[in-house]
Amino acid sequence: MKKSLIAATALLISITACAQETIKLPTPDRAKATMSVMDALNQRQSIRRFSDRALTDDQLSLLLWAANGVNRADGRRTAPTAMNRQDIQVYVCRQDGAFLYDAKANALQRVSSQDLRPHVAGSRQPFAKEAPVCLVIVSDQRQFGPQGSADFGRIDAGYVSQNIYLAATAMGLGTVARAMMDREPLVKGLGLVPEQLLLLNHPVGYVK
Amino acid sequence: MKKSLIAATALLISITACAQETIKLPTPDRAKATMSVMDALNQRQSIRRFSDRALTDDQLSLLLWAANGVNRADGRRTAPTAMNRQDIQVYVCRQDGAFLYDAKANALQRVSSQDLRPHVAGSRQPFAKEAPVCLVIVSDQRQFGPQGSADFGRIDAGYVSQNIYLAATAMGLGTVARAMMDREPLVKGLGLVPEQLLLLNHPVGYVK
Repeated sequence: MKKSLIAATALLISITACAQETIKLPTPDRAKATMSVMDALNQRQSIRRFSDRALTDDQLSLLLWAANGVNRADGRRTAPTAMNRQDIQVYVCRQDGAFLYDAKANALQRVSSQDLRPHVAGSRQPFAKEAPVCLVIVSDQRQFGPQGSADFGRIDAGYVSQNIYLAATAMGLGTVARAMMDREPLVKGLGLVPEQLLLLNHPVGYVK
Repeated sequence: MKKSLIAATALLISITACAQETIKLPTPDRAKATMSVMDALNQRQSIRRFSDRALTDDQLSLLLWAANGVNRADGRRTAPTAMNRQDIQVYVCRQDGAFLYDAKANALQRVSSQDLRPHVAGSRQPFAKEAPVCLVIVSDQRQFGPQGSADFGRIDAGYVSQNIYLAATAMGLGTVARAMMDREPLVKGLGLVPEQLLLLNHPVGYVK
């Protein structure tokens, strides 16, 4: 009895620790990627062949900032949202688990200790799980009030997705936007509520 | 009788000429805007104060190419689309009329001789019609087959809209994405069919 209580307490502490783990990211260094907007647009393409070479924390920080980071003192972002509702959330899936990008804190909040990339990839496009990082774009419909607005959520996802394409291109990385994923296990793995629409994912890595 | 026949013929010729008018754009010169992707993301914001100073043909050509131009020999674009369906069309509304951007020909095809910017602006946000150019983003649902896919169309519109934001920023211009517009007269003015979803518009100009 005592033993199982201790075990249960230990489990609870470990779950709580896992849920609360926050990893501070390095300050994004824009000088690390100097490619012009026009050259990035010229080189932008969808890449589906990834090396498993890891991204550094510096790369991940810059990529996430570009995707949906804070670019103004009032907390506004690199991507617009309908009526500035800031409904878009970016999750990071990699081998050591899954994390919610906290743009204001420039940090990752762990949501899972599992490697969810196979669920992001799905069975039909296994190339996606070979990338060291899979970003997942979610629209939190609660930001639009009780009715939500899936229509605006989708437009807002497109903005962030293009930021990822252009930032990856400027950083010498490849990516592709995908709507295909094993939604049920991914929703469960990321701990999403029904109001969080799972819209797109982006494997990101060096081109193989 | 004869007079009215001549008048009708003249009208028909003028309508046909109007419908067929094609304005070749200068070759987009990417070297004209050298701002980095990261700096453009850092400076990106929604601007709602426009000078009426005109854009040059060079500026319009570069802006349209960045928005949804051809960046590869196989006709692929600066913005991705779901399953490469290339459903997004960009219309240009300015004082001298309205035009469909033909990315492959790098040209404008006239669709109206009217200034449709007041319809783009709508009555509640008159600032939008002060910009010399209003771009209108449409998803042609016929590209997805008989069922269409408004969901993908909206994501695809977001990509092009972010391209416009970043290109305008890099070119020293301001813009804002808007879903508000006087839809009925704009649909009529642009000659859209019901399968063409009117999704967003972007006044673009110098910041006042």
